[in-house]
Amino acid sequence: MGIVLTGGTIVTAVDCYQADVRLAGEKIVAIGRDVSQAEDNVITVEGCYLLPGGLDPHTHFELEGVTTTADDFASGTAAALTGGTTTILDFATQSKGETLAQALANWQSKAAGKCFADFGFHLAITDWNQEVCREMQRLVVEDGISSFKLYMAYKHNLQVDDGIILQALKRSREVGALIGFHCENGDVIDVLIQEARSQGKRSPRFHALTRPAAVEREATARVITLAELADAPVYIVHLSCAGALQEVIAARARGLEVYAETCPQYLILDESCYDTEDFSAAKYVLSPPLRSTYDQAVLWNGLRTGALDTIGTDHCSFNYEGQKELGREDFSKIPNGIPGVENRLGLLYTYGVLTGKINLQQWVAFTSTNAAKLFGLFPRKGTLAVGSDADIVVWDPRQSSTITVSQQTQRVDYNPYEGLPQTGKVEQVFLRGQQVVAQGKLCSKEPQGQYLFRKPFPTRKV
Amino acid sequence: MGIVLTGGTIVTAVDCYQADVRLAGEKIVAIGRDVSQAEDNVITVEGCYLLPGGLDPHTHFELEGVTTTADDFASGTAAALTGGTTTILDFATQSKGETLAQALANWQSKAAGKCFADFGFHLAITDWNQEVCREMQRLVVEDGISSFKLYMAYKHNLQVDDGIILQALKRSREVGALIGFHCENGDVIDVLIQEARSQGKRSPRFHALTRPAAVEREATARVITLAELADAPVYIVHLSCAGALQEVIAARARGLEVYAETCPQYLILDESCYDTEDFSAAKYVLSPPLRSTYDQAVLWNGLRTGALDTIGTDHCSFNYEGQKELGREDFSKIPNGIPGVENRLGLLYTYGVLTGKINLQQWVAFTSTNAAKLFGLFPRKGTLAVGSDADIVVWDPRQSSTITVSQQTQRVDYNPYEGLPQTGKVEQVFLRGQQVVAQGKLCSKEPQGQYLFRKPFPTRKV
Amino acid sequence: MGIVLTGGTIVTAVDCYQADVRLAGEKIVAIGRDVSQAEDNVITVEGCYLLPGGLDPHTHFELEGVTTTADDFASGTAAALTGGTTTILDFATQSKGETLAQALANWQSKAAGKCFADFGFHLAITDWNQEVCREMQRLVVEDGISSFKLYMAYKHNLQVDDGIILQALKRSREVGALIGFHCENGDVIDVLIQEARSQGKRSPRFHALTRPAAVEREATARVITLAELADAPVYIVHLSCAGALQEVIAARARGLEVYAETCPQYLILDESCYDTEDFSAAKYVLSPPLRSTYDQAVLWNGLRTGALDTIGTDHCSFNYEGQKELGREDFSKIPNGIPGVENRLGLLYTYGVLTGKINLQQWVAFTSTNAAKLFGLFPRKGTLAVGSDADIVVWDPRQSSTITVSQQTQRVDYNPYEGLPQTGKVEQVFLRGQQVVAQGKLCSKEPQGQYLFRKPFPTRKV
Amino acid sequence: MGIVLTGGTIVTAVDCYQADVRLAGEKIVAIGRDVSQAEDNVITVEGCYLLPGGLDPHTHFELEGVTTTADDFASGTAAALTGGTTTILDFATQSKGETLAQALANWQSKAAGKCFADFGFHLAITDWNQEVCREMQRLVVEDGISSFKLYMAYKHNLQVDDGIILQALKRSREVGALIGFHCENGDVIDVLIQEARSQGKRSPRFHALTRPAAVEREATARVITLAELADAPVYIVHLSCAGALQEVIAARARGLEVYAETCPQYLILDESCYDTEDFSAAKYVLSPPLRSTYDQAVLWNGLRTGALDTIGTDHCSFNYEGQKELGREDFSKIPNGIPGVENRLGLLYTYGVLTGKINLQQWVAFTSTNAAKLFGLFPRKGTLAVGSDADIVVWDPRQSSTITVSQQTQRVDYNPYEGLPQTGKVEQVFLRGQQVVAQGKLCSKEPQGQYLFRKPFPTRKV
Repeated sequence: MGIVLTGGTIVTAVDCYQADVRLAGEKIVAIGRDVSQAEDNVITVEGCYLLPGGLDPHTHFELEGVTTTADDFASGTAAALTGGTTTILDFATQSKGETLAQALANWQSKAAGKCFADFGFHLAITDWNQEVCREMQRLVVEDGISSFKLYMAYKHNLQVDDGIILQALKRSREVGALIGFHCENGDVIDVLIQEARSQGKRSPRFHALTRPAAVEREATARVITLAELADAPVYIVHLSCAGALQEVIAARARGLEVYAETCPQYLILDESCYDTEDFSAAKYVLSPPLRSTYDQAVLWNGLRTGALDTIGTDHCSFNYEGQKELGREDFSKIPNGIPGVENRLGLLYTYGVLTGKINLQQWVAFTSTNAAKLFGLFPRKGTLAVGSDADIVVWDPRQSSTITVSQQTQRVDYNPYEGLPQTGKVEQVFLRGQQVVAQGKLCSKEPQGQYLFRKPFPTRKV
Repeated sequence: MGIVLTGGTIVTAVDCYQADVRLAGEKIVAIGRDVSQAEDNVITVEGCYLLPGGLDPHTHFELEGVTTTADDFASGTAAALTGGTTTILDFATQSKGETLAQALANWQSKAAGKCFADFGFHLAITDWNQEVCREMQRLVVEDGISSFKLYMAYKHNLQVDDGIILQALKRSREVGALIGFHCENGDVIDVLIQEARSQGKRSPRFHALTRPAAVEREATARVITLAELADAPVYIVHLSCAGALQEVIAARARGLEVYAETCPQYLILDESCYDTEDFSAAKYVLSPPLRSTYDQAVLWNGLRTGALDTIGTDHCSFNYEGQKELGREDFSKIPNGIPGVENRLGLLYTYGVLTGKINLQQWVAFTSTNAAKLFGLFPRKGTLAVGSDADIVVWDPRQSSTITVSQQTQRVDYNPYEGLPQTGKVEQVFLRGQQVVAQGKLCSKEPQGQYLFRKPFPTRKV
Repeated sequence: MGIVLTGGTIVTAVDCYQADVRLAGEKIVAIGRDVSQAEDNVITVEGCYLLPGGLDPHTHFELEGVTTTADDFASGTAAALTGGTTTILDFATQSKGETLAQALANWQSKAAGKCFADFGFHLAITDWNQEVCREMQRLVVEDGISSFKLYMAYKHNLQVDDGIILQALKRSREVGALIGFHCENGDVIDVLIQEARSQGKRSPRFHALTRPAAVEREATARVITLAELADAPVYIVHLSCAGALQEVIAARARGLEVYAETCPQYLILDESCYDTEDFSAAKYVLSPPLRSTYDQAVLWNGLRTGALDTIGTDHCSFNYEGQKELGREDFSKIPNGIPGVENRLGLLYTYGVLTGKINLQQWVAFTSTNAAKLFGLFPRKGTLAVGSDADIVVWDPRQSSTITVSQQTQRVDYNPYEGLPQTGKVEQVFLRGQQVVAQGKLCSKEPQGQYLFRKPFPTRKV
Repeated sequence: MGIVLTGGTIVTAVDCYQADVRLAGEKIVAIGRDVSQAEDNVITVEGCYLLPGGLDPHTHFELEGVTTTADDFASGTAAALTGGTTTILDFATQSKGETLAQALANWQSKAAGKCFADFGFHLAITDWNQEVCREMQRLVVEDGISSFKLYMAYKHNLQVDDGIILQALKRSREVGALIGFHCENGDVIDVLIQEARSQGKRSPRFHALTRPAAVEREATARVITLAELADAPVYIVHLSCAGALQEVIAARARGLEVYAETCPQYLILDESCYDTEDFSAAKYVLSPPLRSTYDQAVLWNGLRTGALDTIGTDHCSFNYEGQKELGREDFSKIPNGIPGVENRLGLLYTYGVLTGKINLQQWVAFTSTNAAKLFGLFPRKGTLAVGSDADIVVWDPRQSSTITVSQQTQRVDYNPYEGLPQTGKVEQVFLRGQQVVAQGKLCSKEPQGQYLFRKPFPTRKV
């Protein structure tokens, strides 16, 4: 007995056509006219788009620091599902002195039994040494972790130097992995923050002013040079500004293998969010910070022309009350990050597809397919094709709503897009053949998300 | 009763997976496991790729001039089919004094009843006036001709000036059309040719030396500026050199809507073909001419990174004997053009996919999907999806052969790729549900190609 | 008996120092402390700068067309002297059907006996043929005309096509000449003008709107490509926009020999001059038109960094009454051009040197030295050095005034800089040892300007 | 009583003319025809060029480390004089824990009483702290030290991080100083060196292979970004590769104040010097290393077009025997540096002026004038003008020789240009009015070089 979704329009990263989809077990088994069989459960989805489940390649759930993120893997993945995202990739982060195996074990235990969506981990390296170098291979081969992350910002904490980056990139090529980079020049930011603080500039807007776009562009250019020296691919996470995108475009034009991710916040919000004297701007304290409307326009153009590959959320939620407020007297103490895992598809559809900035197929490509390909999950995830996991979003384009904290699933006390109208809605979601969202609400009783063992990143032949 | 292809691997511009395909009538009606119905004709295609039929956006069949091309629409489309191309777009070219309607009628009569593949026309404008301006709309609306072409080269013949280009581009935006441009500076080439001839430089190699890459780059840059002034999209045909591609990349980065096509000859052959004193280099006299190996590398990179959109052949065949020989005493009298409609998929698979320069999905995108989208034929053509025309190529990757004139279907006395090894083979082809190639040979008795009425080119919202 | 100027500060394109200058006959014979001899006429110039006489490489005096310019060679050169310019280079322009010799004879007769300043001619070619090609050499060798000009704008009139440009550039290299180019795409402008007129857009502001910066940038890029093909140097006249300057910078960076001139109007005035509905904007109808303040900033930066070489005025004066008014009903009938030969040094000192955008030495370089070097007059003109012509401007930086038509020498009924404050003043001028301006007024009774036979342009060794 | 040099041709950064020069005391007092006075010592210099004494902005004399440079201030400045350089600027380098005052005192004592040429110091900061920040102002105001230096290479030794660079640049703007940067990414080089050593790659050629051009380009781009953030000018020392120059050109084009120096070795020698298996390549171990002939061509073009400002030698001499040999078993132990202070003018004349790559005036500009202007010594140094120091080089262009260690004054056992022909010769040199070189030989008995108190670097108005 299978399930047949009938009457919808299938959208993939390349196609858009009307057909029925038949699911059996965890998989899609047929697409076509008249594909239902006796005893199938036939569900009518007239007027809806059928999308491959979203893949958010950039979340931070249950991240501990001075304070712990508002969302853990339970609330975060529940929010993901209700927003049409069936797979998330979070960052298992090495603490100083730890092995990578310990970091992974730590994150596996955070996620175990709690995830409503399927999940995997990138491994963020903060303490490089020869053992870490060896471990990279074990993680790829034994744990299906084929992506890592390095930070060029957060001095004295997560930041690594250029020598480590070069070594890690060389190693990534050997082991079949892709490294994502947080590109901001941490040394410079550190000086700018100290300078601002010493001048009594302590309100949230100085968070943005002490992380200018130039430091992101510079770090992006630098890591591209390091990748060229290492002959390795790179993935730029949360690219937010025009200058950094131009570096990516130039690098590709000269033959380098560079991929880039942006986030909804950089496409839809802008630096005017900081134009307030009260503390509410703390809601928009994230790194990189929000940029200008010019940067926005350039990023949208980057999506339209394929210069950007993916859209992640960098979901890292802190409550305004009690958490963001830690920095009331000093912007540098405001925990960095905003929520968004729940709003990604809706924002992109409303402000991207309906405005003509991207088309339906690109919407799917940027929110699902491209990340699945880059991170070793395709074609299991990222497409609606026979043999793929039956992760399906039923998107009703006729519905409209207003984004508001009171309606959200993510467990945080504000929504950065509060009050924005949204067109279209996640009506139903299937995860590996099981319905997990019905009538727009989570209907999954138990967390059924599975850990995803991912394929290595293919080495480019030259 | 339908046909089921079973055991193959479906490749589209985004997907690659094993599934059966069921055809009924002219369409694909199901894809999946166990989709055959009673009485279906089940054909086993184990180990083969199933591709959407190729779309060659750039052919010149039965082109008349001082001499008429060796291939007419019968031999040309037969060759296309055996090479895996089920749709061709040819250029109906206005003669001076003609209306566009006359030009179209002229080409319709050349093609009528002769085509083995489906076909459509771009309309090449050579004599601009207000009536032509008005006709552009009629052609889009009434004839389904949503693409035009203008020549920046061939002075005193096909070439139009920048004022005409600007007017035509503005008009294209109004009527929903895309204009393709032959980008070479004809004024400069004319001077260089006269200079070479006056210096007694008359062998074929001077064809290339009088059309340097700089004149292509310049014309490409110029037409992009004109498109920017007109706020219209442009399509660059047969882009052959690094400089022109850099102009395209820069234009996209600043938000312009620019598309570009290259050809197998620019990817696989190079200027060393002209390094001979005898006349045989005439076989490689085409415009733009073959370029350096550096240009080749840049073009491959352009494909890999999506800076190029399509691969057409610019098939324009003249026999070496009797036709190319018209220029024995003067390179400028050698008819311009080379054959290739039959070799496109095989060359790209062998020298692109198998070398790792592009992947399987890109192979499909460049030889079929992207052109179908740009030229108003998608999703009828360009994909393997339910509801699409059942134009299917069964590609057997296990076979290998050597390209040679003696085995070719195209009706010309040489092959520019003579002696090159090819891996993979077009084993079967279906055109709108009918098998037209079997065991690698044309099995269609009658020309069954249909004229394709194409959709307008969508105006970009801003 | 000589003349000694004592107490001043000598400024050249590189130096700035206090010393006396001794003139004898037409030459500078000594610079130093205590260089006066018995019977010398010692003139005290305490607190003043001593500058080499200005060289304006771009004037149009007594230019005939539908109407004749307000200034002839008498009033024009008188104005030049009072503004500190002792040498002008005008454009002898070939009419269709004429030889270059006839054009030169025509202009020699216009200037003969009338010039108060020294003068020479560039020869503007409008009707290319083999005889003209031969004449280029005679003009260089026999007439000391080592510079030419070609127009890429003014279709059906002065404009030449790219083939002619290429031939002329190749010839210029052979004969030792430098060609200046008016870079605007005339074909495009012609279409834009006809379009505007047909839409009833006839006020002066549409002059600017039908000549957008993109057509200048495009033509600049194109002529640079042609120069590259010809292996010849080029000089871009009246460069007015950021885009064109970027093309120049890029060309130099890749090894081409490209020089560029801008004008005071592009540095000091901007497109807001067209923001009026009345006809007074006709005073600012010139080609290229005034640009944005962004373009201004980029041009100033180009001067500071040496990306621009010279500042000419393109002085081409028409009275507002009776002449500019010819276009009251149609902007395209307004005669193109503005005056300025008298205001060049004062504007550049006030708005360039005193604002810190350029320094004193650059002021001299851009208004005198660099043009003297490019146009074969150095070191006779363009510097204050022993052996050079005693063309000396005594500039008093302590004076200030307001630019106004009522005080000007140039014979035209308006001044485009009307009301602008000026600091510094031309107090005295010496032309080949003779005082021609005293107390800021022309004191030369007779026109003593001489025709200047100029040296060939040196061919770069490679 | 004065000295008159008669019959020569004066060359400055802008002029070239025949005149006599009269010196009195330490200064030039007159230039002209017939400027000698009774009792003057008249020296005939027929056929010779008279140049302003050279200024080498980049020397390292008596530099102590594992081994001390072969040349001290005595031999180094004697060599400078015989090569036509009358002023050198050396680097006083702070040791860890030292104040800048101590570093300066240290270098003043090394130079005191030993210098045959005039001299000054840049101060190289290696240990940044608040006291150092304060000292910068004292050095400018009290010691006439208006230039500093920071190293981006030599990890664990001289290298500073980006935060320090930013702070120092901000400070430089406040105090009126210019900072020079050694631009190579030290972190990356450190990894590459360790990697090479661990692989047994220990011969001198690996010095070059572990410092690829990309690390110089990257560091150059980075420091330009930091300068943009600090709103401060920067000076790039010993720029050696095309990529770095392109960064400089792009920075200037967008309005930044960036200056750059190259060295004779990068113009005349190339990486083929490392193509030997024996240890002799150690003679060419310097940082940055020698580059490709393509880089050479780009640097020459940069000089021709003014993209580069100065030519220093980075003279840092170690004997091949006993010093370079310290790295026989390990390239990373070879002391870095080559001699050249003596050969700068001769090399540039022979391989620059005579080949047509630069002209006579540029030769003077790059070897004297531009550095004098940038480093606060103009017009006292850097020109031949009335009132300037009578530092004059009499250059005889009719002589020719071969560069060889046996004829050199610099006190080192090899010459990197050994065997190269040179045209032209330093015949006489005057330092502040005293003849110090006669017939090409040092004739100064006592070291008469003076310490030069330099002017602040002017802050650009915006």
